[in-house]
Amino acid sequence: MALLADDRLFPTEARSRAMARSLYETVRSLPIVSPHGHTDPRWFAENQHFPDPAHLIVVPDHYIFRMLVSQGVPLAALGVPSADGSPVETDGRVIWRRFAENYHLFRGTPTRLWLDDAFQNLFGIDERLSAENADRAYDRIAECLAQEDFRPRALFERFGVEVIATTEGALDDLAFHRAIKESGWSGRVVTTYRPDAVVDPDFPGFAANLVRLGELTGCDTGTFAGYLDAHRARRRFFREHGATATDHGHPTARTASLSAAEAAALYDRVRDGHASADEREQFRALMLTEMAKLSVEDGMVMQIHAGSFRNHSGPVAAAFGRDKGFDIPMPTNYVDALKPMLDVVGMEPGLTIILFTLDETVYARELAPLAGVYPALRLGPPWWFYDSFQGMKRFREQVTETAGFYNTVGFNDDTRAFCSIPARHDVARRVDCGYLAELVTTGRLDEDEAFEVAHDLTYRLAKEAYRL
Amino acid sequence: MALLADDRLFPTEARSRAMARSLYETVRSLPIVSPHGHTDPRWFAENQHFPDPAHLIVVPDHYIFRMLVSQGVPLAALGVPSADGSPVETDGRVIWRRFAENYHLFRGTPTRLWLDDAFQNLFGIDERLSAENADRAYDRIAECLAQEDFRPRALFERFGVEVIATTEGALDDLAFHRAIKESGWSGRVVTTYRPDAVVDPDFPGFAANLVRLGELTGCDTGTFAGYLDAHRARRRFFREHGATATDHGHPTARTASLSAAEAAALYDRVRDGHASADEREQFRALMLTEMAKLSVEDGMVMQIHAGSFRNHSGPVAAAFGRDKGFDIPMPTNYVDALKPMLDVVGMEPGLTIILFTLDETVYARELAPLAGVYPALRLGPPWWFYDSFQGMKRFREQVTETAGFYNTVGFNDDTRAFCSIPARHDVARRVDCGYLAELVTTGRLDEDEAFEVAHDLTYRLAKEAYRL
Amino acid sequence: MALLADDRLFPTEARSRAMARSLYETVRSLPIVSPHGHTDPRWFAENQHFPDPAHLIVVPDHYIFRMLVSQGVPLAALGVPSADGSPVETDGRVIWRRFAENYHLFRGTPTRLWLDDAFQNLFGIDERLSAENADRAYDRIAECLAQEDFRPRALFERFGVEVIATTEGALDDLAFHRAIKESGWSGRVVTTYRPDAVVDPDFPGFAANLVRLGELTGCDTGTFAGYLDAHRARRRFFREHGATATDHGHPTARTASLSAAEAAALYDRVRDGHASADEREQFRALMLTEMAKLSVEDGMVMQIHAGSFRNHSGPVAAAFGRDKGFDIPMPTNYVDALKPMLDVVGMEPGLTIILFTLDETVYARELAPLAGVYPALRLGPPWWFYDSFQGMKRFREQVTETAGFYNTVGFNDDTRAFCSIPARHDVARRVDCGYLAELVTTGRLDEDEAFEVAHDLTYRLAKEAYRL
Repeated sequence: MALLADDRLFPTEARSRAMARSLYETVRSLPIVSPHGHTDPRWFAENQHFPDPAHLIVVPDHYIFRMLVSQGVPLAALGVPSADGSPVETDGRVIWRRFAENYHLFRGTPTRLWLDDAFQNLFGIDERLSAENADRAYDRIAECLAQEDFRPRALFERFGVEVIATTEGALDDLAFHRAIKESGWSGRVVTTYRPDAVVDPDFPGFAANLVRLGELTGCDTGTFAGYLDAHRARRRFFREHGATATDHGHPTARTASLSAAEAAALYDRVRDGHASADEREQFRALMLTEMAKLSVEDGMVMQIHAGSFRNHSGPVAAAFGRDKGFDIPMPTNYVDALKPMLDVVGMEPGLTIILFTLDETVYARELAPLAGVYPALRLGPPWWFYDSFQGMKRFREQVTETAGFYNTVGFNDDTRAFCSIPARHDVARRVDCGYLAELVTTGRLDEDEAFEVAHDLTYRLAKEAYRL
Repeated sequence: MALLADDRLFPTEARSRAMARSLYETVRSLPIVSPHGHTDPRWFAENQHFPDPAHLIVVPDHYIFRMLVSQGVPLAALGVPSADGSPVETDGRVIWRRFAENYHLFRGTPTRLWLDDAFQNLFGIDERLSAENADRAYDRIAECLAQEDFRPRALFERFGVEVIATTEGALDDLAFHRAIKESGWSGRVVTTYRPDAVVDPDFPGFAANLVRLGELTGCDTGTFAGYLDAHRARRRFFREHGATATDHGHPTARTASLSAAEAAALYDRVRDGHASADEREQFRALMLTEMAKLSVEDGMVMQIHAGSFRNHSGPVAAAFGRDKGFDIPMPTNYVDALKPMLDVVGMEPGLTIILFTLDETVYARELAPLAGVYPALRLGPPWWFYDSFQGMKRFREQVTETAGFYNTVGFNDDTRAFCSIPARHDVARRVDCGYLAELVTTGRLDEDEAFEVAHDLTYRLAKEAYRL
Repeated sequence: MALLADDRLFPTEARSRAMARSLYETVRSLPIVSPHGHTDPRWFAENQHFPDPAHLIVVPDHYIFRMLVSQGVPLAALGVPSADGSPVETDGRVIWRRFAENYHLFRGTPTRLWLDDAFQNLFGIDERLSAENADRAYDRIAECLAQEDFRPRALFERFGVEVIATTEGALDDLAFHRAIKESGWSGRVVTTYRPDAVVDPDFPGFAANLVRLGELTGCDTGTFAGYLDAHRARRRFFREHGATATDHGHPTARTASLSAAEAAALYDRVRDGHASADEREQFRALMLTEMAKLSVEDGMVMQIHAGSFRNHSGPVAAAFGRDKGFDIPMPTNYVDALKPMLDVVGMEPGLTIILFTLDETVYARELAPLAGVYPALRLGPPWWFYDSFQGMKRFREQVTETAGFYNTVGFNDDTRAFCSIPARHDVARRVDCGYLAELVTTGRLDEDEAFEVAHDLTYRLAKEAYRL
């Protein structure tokens, strides 16, 4: 029995399905371009074997432990490290069994598709995971992971990754990226400049981070001008390690444009820790515009990931720390929020700002109309909870009629789950081909155009938008 | 001529339709579990014949009179009782004719499906209602209602109702429920604790209601501690009459967590009628958290129905009173609103809070991510305007990928229109089977799993979530 | 090769497609009723030849130049007139080539469908526009436009337009409408009263406009009572030129109901230019209610187009002026916003207020429930960015189950792109027939009803709602 249907995610009607299959055949084996994600560069630098199946697949994946927690499995029972030192399960096999006996919870979710794809195509498993076969699957995966051709670099090559971008904080020394480069290995792993820790006054250790930023760059981060110079220096350093893009994770999409004097005064207030909540938000807003201006200078592509309420559960954040699956989307406004920045840089022909959202109501109402007129704007693919069959369909159906295909930028896998990368790209390719097929069968696109667009969405747009 | 197509609401593509039909065959005759609704317990206590067709079907159904009003038929002409004593139509046959001659207005609405189902399957009518056949239909239904096997208990049994929950206010004496129990009849009718009248300071007669609550329970509702004890007592009383759940109809989903002293002070202000609008909202918010804490104590399932702008038309409310079809949904935020309560009880493994919304934009953005991580949360089915083919499709398509099936709770009919109950459950079963069928034919779910999920959505989840 | 597929926009499944085709055959050739749009009455008054292809098709169409700008083509390069006197491209052939070489940008957009329809059916072009064939297409269209039967009146008749409404400001002398009438030509071109320039205190020249309004009417616009009388007079003047409707373009849907004294005082403040932003919004809100009251008096249908952030780009507005494609939708609330007006006129049986939105989230949540109960309300068709295949589908799917078909008003083309009018109506007819076909094949509507509704949506509802 196969875990995966050959025609999965294609339209059901016969002519559309055949068209989708034809399109998909031309893109299924294209190289993977992964311009935004969270894989660990250490894997590729050190090329060590991955850990046991549970610690590779279950423990670090918030899609998985979130669902298990929602049905009453404690985070500690899943081996998620605690922040307060309380004990957590460490036996991979025990964790794996808990996961396997709850595998039915993932019915109808993208996680199920990604997992089945990896189980079948990577580990050669052909039975659906269950309490009954949990140990067999665990042993099979463990056996694979012990093999040479399951080390990180071998998988990178087997997956057909042409280039992958990781994401590092502004203070990172990029040692692993340097090591990868110096190793002579041919795999292309680039970094991305993510300066939240030195841009967001609410980031833990913000003041100390500014001091460190000054030390690393030799710039005087005691002044706003010096602080911007420090960014210039770090952006240059990141570009030397392959970066073509920056990334900004902000609670809102708010931007601001201030005079030099206003900006300097605001910087002083946030730096000494006395800024109000509103001033801290104002500073984040200012910095999006300033980062866009630096992108005009240095050509780096800018990504904005806005709208996540981070660490929603107070008790869980206290016990387990940040990023433990309790981030929840918020309504997010882009029209008012982006105007100050767009009035400054929106018409710059050389600039690319890629917008992401966790609020799907803005696709048709705000993002498509904005990206459909401002030359500096492009739309990132469906993010996070929307990296899914229906999520991608809604994105295309709500964006394309106003912004077309060419104001979008192809797919991001955005993941730290390395083994799921081929599956994630495969899902996107299938959904895009299905969407294009229905355009053809309903007379909204010519067949020859559909083949060209399928290739663009799979490969060309990501490379060009991210300048990779 | 049949009013109903055998394959109604199934996908149109042949393989998906066949799959939907197969799934539906296994669930169509399962017992009806109706864990939330507004039928009148008096019907089952007294088992009197229902009134004439118009006063059974048209006059009390706001889905019906709302549509007629929207096209210029006055409420009074439909027999809707006035609050100001002005005369209204009382002749059932006249009301029925007005309804019948406007039956085309319901094209494409769920009301049309529910009505046709009852006309065909309950009353044996085989022609579409119209001005021409209005009298024939009226006579046919009246003739049926005069028969013994159309009395409430007979219909209850014929409909295959395993259990039905009604909804009563906190001050209700539950005499009808007691009478049902004492009658020895086997039908299971349980109540639900709906304390809005003693929780919402904006409820008419709030202060007097608190006094009455004290009298009924012997608790001192002059203090917050005594007031909470009174709730404890009434909840116990309701459980003795079968209740397993509470229900809370609030304008927003706002919750609050206050210290005992703050809570007591706020209670004093709302009790003496001097609280500001903000304090009154704050009190409602506080009480959601307090009710959740009582649910942790006593195991009652908690339902939150938020986001309705009640009695939107001032003139209609003045002339006809509350609940006359002029309730309109409002944008509703859950992420910020629920956080105070969730920080207190969200991780409680024994607690179940079922969330309902009239704002579909929160399905994917807020409700699915919240229910997909907090063990205390479950999602109620599409409510009110969304209890429909497209409404259910949107719910499943926007919720499942993040929250799966097992953070949802099956179907609620939520109705006072008793004759429509089989039709409403049938619609839900068909739409769910259609959704599952498309998961199968697009390779997102295995066939054996689909049969299991179909049964879960129809029967098991409602019983388990509501502890029935 | 044909540019257009015969069965375009119909469902893909065979039975639904056949049903859609049958429905469409009965409505495809019905006369065009165009109750709201922006064609230039001068065309029909003077009946001059249209200009060159670029200045007819590309330069004035913000759907087209918006997309080209989004990919880096400057507005000036497209011949869009500047406001600051800077030079712009004037050579139609050069503009046309820029457009043609970027024709792939329109893949998947409604613009592509409208253009291909006009190219094929109006100009007899059978190859997809491209850089290669740009000149051939240009020459072909230019050749057509030079012919007698491509003059405005000839096209009007060829298109089968039964009646078309234009839109003029309150101060317009309607000379072209008078000329049309006096010419003896049989084409029916009516005006629409659009008083934004004398209602919106933020409109450029508002104070001077009020003076002019007084001069035109002989009313004392120095008082609120005189100002309302001036509206009465202008509305009468517009009705004498065929108007049956008014139209109101407001940033929000906010309405207000004030006492005579409050209204007079507010009018004084906005008139002397000292009103705050809030008071100016309050005045717009007041005037929606006042206009509705005038509609009760004089029977004119009232249209509200709310929710556009006009001229979003500061630099573009400075260089090119208003309405240059940088209008972006905003979240728009209707439930609270309309209540003051609805409390005054919502139950008026003789009044028709047609609501439009750029915020699709309100279709199911706010607009359908409101129009599904208030007799004065009707819903306009999907507007602007949503005048598209998916936009129309979302509208029907989200509106029909609550408001039915008969609280909607058929199609508006809302365009100044005269050559696209048949294509736009054809798209609406196809999408509606596809939607109705799926209702039939899923057992939600009888076949005979679908034919009746198809005719209603295409023809009858527009005529009746707009009293044309």
